[in-house]
Formats: sequence, C-alpha cells, structure tokens
Amino acid sequence: MFLKEDDSLMLHTDLYQINMGETYWFDGIHENTAVFDVYFRSMPFDSGYAVFAGLERIIEYIKRLKFSPSDIDYLREQGFQEDYLSYLKELRFTGNIRSMREGEICFNNEPLLRVEAPLIQAQLIETAVLNIINFQTLIATKASRIKQVVKDELVMEFGTRRAQEMDAAIWGARSAYIAGFDSTSNVRAGKLFGIPISGTHAHAMVQAYDDEYIAFKKYAERHKNCVFLVDTFHTLKSGVPNAIRVAKELGDKINFVGIRLDSGDLSYLSKEARKMLDDAGFKDTKIFASNDLDEETIISLKQQGSKITAWGIGTKLITAYDQPALGAVYKLVAIADDNGVLQDRIKISNNAEKVTTPGKKNLYRIINNKTGKSEGDYITLDHENPSAEAELKMFHPIFTYKKKRVKDFTAKDLHVDIFKEGELVYTTPRLDEIAAYHLENLELIWEETKRHLNPQEYPVDLSTACWNNKNDKIHEVSNKVEDVE
Amino acid sequence: MFLKEDDSLMLHTDLYQINMGETYWFDGIHENTAVFDVYFRSMPFDSGYAVFAGLERIIEYIKRLKFSPSDIDYLREQGFQEDYLSYLKELRFTGNIRSMREGEICFNNEPLLRVEAPLIQAQLIETAVLNIINFQTLIATKASRIKQVVKDELVMEFGTRRAQEMDAAIWGARSAYIAGFDSTSNVRAGKLFGIPISGTHAHAMVQAYDDEYIAFKKYAERHKNCVFLVDTFHTLKSGVPNAIRVAKELGDKINFVGIRLDSGDLSYLSKEARKMLDDAGFKDTKIFASNDLDEETIISLKQQGSKITAWGIGTKLITAYDQPALGAVYKLVAIADDNGVLQDRIKISNNAEKVTTPGKKNLYRIINNKTGKSEGDYITLDHENPSAEAELKMFHPIFTYKKKRVKDFTAKDLHVDIFKEGELVYTTPRLDEIAAYHLENLELIWEETKRHLNPQEYPVDLSTACWNNKNDKIHEVSNKVEDVE
Repeated sequence: MFLKEDDSLMLHTDLYQINMGETYWFDGIHENTAVFDVYFRSMPFDSGYAVFAGLERIIEYIKRLKFSPSDIDYLREQGFQEDYLSYLKELRFTGNIRSMREGEICFNNEPLLRVEAPLIQAQLIETAVLNIINFQTLIATKASRIKQVVKDELVMEFGTRRAQEMDAAIWGARSAYIAGFDSTSNVRAGKLFGIPISGTHAHAMVQAYDDEYIAFKKYAERHKNCVFLVDTFHTLKSGVPNAIRVAKELGDKINFVGIRLDSGDLSYLSKEARKMLDDAGFKDTKIFASNDLDEETIISLKQQGSKITAWGIGTKLITAYDQPALGAVYKLVAIADDNGVLQDRIKISNNAEKVTTPGKKNLYRIINNKTGKSEGDYITLDHENPSAEAELKMFHPIFTYKKKRVKDFTAKDLHVDIFKEGELVYTTPRLDEIAAYHLENLELIWEETKRHLNPQEYPVDLSTACWNNKNDKIHEVSNKVEDVE
Repeated sequence: MFLKEDDSLMLHTDLYQINMGETYWFDGIHENTAVFDVYFRSMPFDSGYAVFAGLERIIEYIKRLKFSPSDIDYLREQGFQEDYLSYLKELRFTGNIRSMREGEICFNNEPLLRVEAPLIQAQLIETAVLNIINFQTLIATKASRIKQVVKDELVMEFGTRRAQEMDAAIWGARSAYIAGFDSTSNVRAGKLFGIPISGTHAHAMVQAYDDEYIAFKKYAERHKNCVFLVDTFHTLKSGVPNAIRVAKELGDKINFVGIRLDSGDLSYLSKEARKMLDDAGFKDTKIFASNDLDEETIISLKQQGSKITAWGIGTKLITAYDQPALGAVYKLVAIADDNGVLQDRIKISNNAEKVTTPGKKNLYRIINNKTGKSEGDYITLDHENPSAEAELKMFHPIFTYKKKRVKDFTAKDLHVDIFKEGELVYTTPRLDEIAAYHLENLELIWEETKRHLNPQEYPVDLSTACWNNKNDKIHEVSNKVEDVE
C-alpha cells in the first residue's frame, strides 16, 4: 500500500521548502546562487568534541535527487501549478558542496558542510541533509565517547531492537564503527557497509531446550566460537557452571571465548564468574556484558574493579539516550544579487549565540607545528588564506578578551570538495579508512578537550575579517529595525 | 556503493538469530511451533497509558520476508554452511500473528502482539518486529499525550530534520497522525501515508529578500493561505508589523491565516502580537508557535495565558526526547514438544517484574457495561473464555491483595488475527480510520489514567489460571536450580 514503486527521497523534505521554491520560481530568483552553512550550536552530551558523520548518505541522496512521476502527481494533487511542476520535473542538483570528511573531530558553531547552489535546490535539500547529519553525527559522537572509556577492550553495537526505526539501526551501526566500535549485531548493516558482525545466542535458545546444559551443548556442536549467555535461570548457580561443563566436555572442539552477562549486578557477577572460570582453568575467557550500558556505567564498573572485558552497547548508544537530538541548523549566509555577486546575509536573535555568521566561509584547523596539537579551529571569509600568514590572531568570537597569537602553524582545510557544479568529485573512503582517519585525528586534540567530564572548551574562532563582517551586518540590521519603529 | 539492488529487510536482524537458527536447524527442532509475546515492562514518560503502533509496517515486512540472492551470498562469506543456506533460501513466513490494532490504548506487561510460528521463523523476525513496535508505539504515545493537552487546537508534526534518520521521520509522522495530530511537514510522509501536509516559509526566505516586507509580499502573491514567520529580524518591531502591512495591502487576495513565532519568550510575544493583530482588525488570525515544545511547555504556556492557538511540534516528539526508547521485549512463552504439544516456558530474573509469564495467552479489556469504562485488562491462558463467566476475579499480579470482582461486563478481545499459517487475513484500515479508532478507544479509559501527571495505575491482571501457571513454573525452575547447586 505505502511502498510506491518509484518512491524517491526528493519529497523527504518539509513542505515549506516547496512553497518557498514556488515563490522564488515565480519571482525569478530561484536560480540565484545561495550559500548555506550547516552547523550545530551546542555540544551534545556536554562533550568536549563531536564526530562528523553522514556524508556518504548525503552523497547517495544528492546523486539520486530527482522528482519521480508519482512525486509530481502527488504535488499536483496538493494544488501546485503545472508550470512550476514542469520546472521541478527537470530539476537536478547542479551546485557545489564542500564538507568535512566523515570521522572528523568537529565542534559547535563551525560549518560542517557548505552548500553553494541555485537557491531553490539549496532549499529543497535542507531537510534531508539535516536529518542525516543530525543523527549520524550524534551517534558517532556518542560512540567515540564510549570508545574513549572502553579503550582497547572489545566494544560491540547491539542496539537495533531499540533503535528509532530501521534507518537509525543501520546508519547508527555505521556511525559507531566510524568512531571505533569493533562490530555490530545488525546483519544488514554488515552486508551493506562491510562492518564486522557479531552475536551468539539469546535467552530464547536456553528456554527452547528448557535445559541450559543441553542448550549450550547444542550450540557448541554447531559453532566453533562460543560465548554463552548465562542469565536465563540463575547466573552463578546455573549459567556459569553449565558453560564450564560444556567447555570442559568439548575441549578443543570449540573455542570457549567467554560468557555474557545481561542482567543483575554486573560488577559482582563478573567478579564471581571470573573466579569460577579461572578455577576451572579458563583464564583466557572473556566476560561480556550488556544491559543499558554507556560511558557512565562503564566508568563506574571499571572503578568498581569489575572483570568485564567486552562490552555490548545497545539502547543508550543507538538512541543517544541522554541527548537524542543534535540540533544542527542550515542557515543562509549569502545570496547572489541580479549581477551574480554574492551578498552576505544574517539572521538576528536576542540570543547572541543564535545570530548567524554571514558570508561564504572556510574552516581551518590550526595545528601547532611544535606540539603537533591543534590550537583551535579558525573560520575565515572565502578570500582569506591563513596559510599565507606568519602569525594568526585567534580570539573568542563572543568573549573577545580571550585571545592568543599563533606562529609556526599548519592551517588544515577541514572541508573537501564533494560536488562541483553538480558533479561528484569526491572518492568516498572505505569504512575502515574512515575509522582510521577518526582515530588519527583524535591525536590532534588535547586530552583536556577529550576527557569525559568537564572538558576544556576547544576554541572555534572567527578571523578578524569574518568577525568584523558579522558585526557590520548586525548593526546594519538593527539600524533597519529601528527605522521601522 | 551500499545500495544493493536486491537489498531486503530479511537481514535486518541480529546475527544471533541466524546463529540460533542454525543450531535449531542442525538439531531438527527448527520447525517446532514456538509462541513469543511482545510487551514492554514499564510505561514510557511515566504515562498512564500508551498507544500501540507499527502493525502496518510489520505486515509489509512479513509479507516480503525472504532471503535475497545477495543476502545468501553475504551469509556464505560469513561462513554459514551451504546446506543451512539452502534451507534459508526457501524460507517464508508460515506462522500465525495476532496483534493489537494500531491506535489501541495499551499498557505495560501485556502482550501487544503474539507470534506463533516455526521456531526459526519466529526468531528471525524478532529484531525487526521490536525495532518497529518500539519506535512507533513510543511516538504514538508521546503524540497522544501532547494531543491531550492541546485539546481541540491545531497541532502539527514538524520534526523531520531532528528525527533519528529518515525512517524515523516518516513513521514518526504517521504515528503522530494516528494519535491525533492534524498534519506533518514531511511531504514524503504525506504522499506515502495520506497524511495532510502543512508548512509555509522559513527564515531563509526573509533573508533571501533581505527585506521582510518584500519577502512576505512575494510569498503572498503566490500563496493564498498565508502564515508569516515573524522572528527573522525582530518579532514585534519588524515581523508582526510587516505581516499586518502585507495583509492589509493584499486584503481579500489572500487568506491571512496567522503568524508563526519560533524563538524568544513565546508567552510574552504571543500576547503582544495578539494585541497588535487585534488592533489591526485581524481578530481571527491564529498565532502559531514552535521551538522545542512538548506537553510540559504547552501546559506552562497555557497556564501563563499565552495566546498561541496552533502548535508546531518537532524535536521533543519525533525523538521522544524525554525517553527515547520504549524497551519492548520478545519472549518465548511456549514451544511444541516432539509430539507437537505446546509446553510452557519461563525466564527467571531476580527482579520479579522481569520474570516472563509463560503460556499461549489472550488479552481482553474488561468493560463495565454500566459505566462504559474499562475495569482493566485481563490476560488469560488460551483455553479460557472470560465472556462465558458471570463474574471475574481481577487482582494485581504482584500485589495480589489488590483485587476486585467484576460483574456485568463485556470482555473485548484486544488481539485480532493478522497472519494465519502465513496468509495475511487482516485488512488494514485507512489511516484516518486508525486515528478515529484511537480517539474512540480513549473514551474507555478513565480520566484519572489519562491525566498528564501522576496518573492512576491501570490494572493489567492475570486470570487465576494464568497466575497459577506462572507460579508453578517459577517453582519448577527454582527447584531445578537448587538441584544443580
């Protein structure tokens, strides 16, 4: 019923985009070049850093951007005029997109992605671009935070059943892998993205046989690598003893990887189980745990001296439970006039942080050549070239007294060209390359920014030219508002 | 790259389902009939009631259930054996599903949906069924709560950009409509599901023209129904006056529906804007508001005497921000022995609420014929027929001293047959019929259970036979565990 043959993502947009498009089109400004920035205003989870993700999905979306026949039919039913529909029918993406690479460390108030395209196209893609970036960046960030506390131990994504519908499950699994997770339980995510998959058995198998010993044995007869779930009846009186019994009976026929705890006091049970496993001679077995874990509970379990060495993370990661939305926005910063010359634009708010930063801009990471660490990120107007400067003046864009001068630096352009005049010019890295890029880039950031609690704020500064331009625009608009009065 | 031509949802499952399936298959018990219940253990949002949704998506999923060639190839790469893969290749769903209707009022610890199918099939569908029900039921519940406080005012779903990826956006929009929302901004959800769509324009349009008056006028020249977004530069000094100016100039040429506030102090601004609109003679205009609204902020705004009369709900609804996961589980309650006779099964936990309720069961709503209100829900074993009883003894399944006797009642079966031996036997209602069903069923529930804060707990009781059966099983298993010791 609802699965139309030619379902496209073109209509995965807010109605107002199509309404505004009609106004622009009717007025003849629809193909004026517009520049939009994507950014978020505050750090998720009070984290010191975030992790950009979503680009690959955006590329696939933009490549296929086209109204299908049933899309046009639907808009006709909604009352849109034939002449406008004729225009939409032919619409393809012909603009430029520059973006961060996936896995990049990113911060609030800096452009993650920049769209420069005919106004109507740039508006039509806003909703989907935000929908993708908001979710995938959120989950990559949460996963990276969890990975920071797990360190080199095994960490697996287990969240599909609690994910917010199917796309969240698979794209969330991919985001987690980018940020350092070892595997996912979602087989489709494994197939589509090449993520390693993992999983053993559930309580249902033990219930199906009604006898835990027999269930474990049946499983072991068919599966070389065994992790037994031990809490169906009683972890210490039944589950662990049965796991040990089967492992002893089957000996070299299986690889007894370990046991999994999924309920009860994980700290206590892991310590008791560790003793039982060690006493039985299985000192190399791992203890897996799952049950609403996230970075907070993992830190607590480690602090308690738990013996867990492999972590299954579900609900709290896949839904970003403690902050389930990122809040990235997509704001117009410039638009071409009738002569094709870009004119900067601003949106004012009573809240200083919500005032947009006008102008077509670039973003650099200023790396101190001596320490190899980043001094902060630096937003410039398009014509500026920080690499050509001997010294940069960096200052906080709101509390301007916070400032420093940086010499002997490398200015790394954080954006790469993705689409140029509608052509895809970017080669997507393999997923393991993206994960490696993330790991590598974490090294640029001071530990003080990466720590889990009360991290040091990372500087995201405007160049002097960019800051002056913003202030000029603010005054221009406020003067205009006063005139109206 | 990741969009395989024959992408199917068959692999949208946890790896352990396929692993367990292999054990069952190898052992020859894979086609033994198993019964699984889907239920959640605690009420989301501390709500007094929840709203079931997700069935239509489950039906479409089950209908298409089949391993595609590339699914099989992928499993082969993962090391699964050819003989098992040959079996999987032919697998289709041949079981029975009984479920609540979408829009049904539901509660914790009662079966929302019951699967009775060959064990391997029932396991393979677990993950996707939970993924769907967990999200859609969560959003329908949140939306219904918001609708309860909005009452007869207009309420619109606006959340796509903040949704957890694309499926969440469209299925969330559908869940909101089921629960009483008037429209969605997502055009694709409108097209796929027939939900009314709504939306006007964004800040970007005002910025594009740089002149708010001109922007409003251009919009009004092409769109009959106008809602102007008034906070791009300054709500009271610029936005509202420009909206009034354009409305006066265009007169009957447009339908000046109202204005929209999207930032600032919504209560104060709505009161001031109301005065300005009234003074200009636009007493019938509406004041729309959006900006992280949910039932809490709406109650507060109403209590402050705000003049908002139409509500745009985004982030807080579409992500179920205050509790972004439902936590429904899928538990084995019975499995056929070698003679095909169902044997009840249980899972024990230290936590009494986590012990499963064994047996193939049915669920009834016990409606008092005098009041027309529900006395509670009543879970029976499959052979019981509460309609045949003159009097029911209803008691709390844990605090059994809480009890009552009910006479002169109607026992409404809350489950309907969806699939019988693999055949779809259910005709899906239209979406507006589902929404009407939800509204109608809310009437069965006392206001005390529906209230927003500290609702009265609704009784979900076990029949005496069901309760005795559960306790027998608990003792059986704990005796067995003691024997092991």
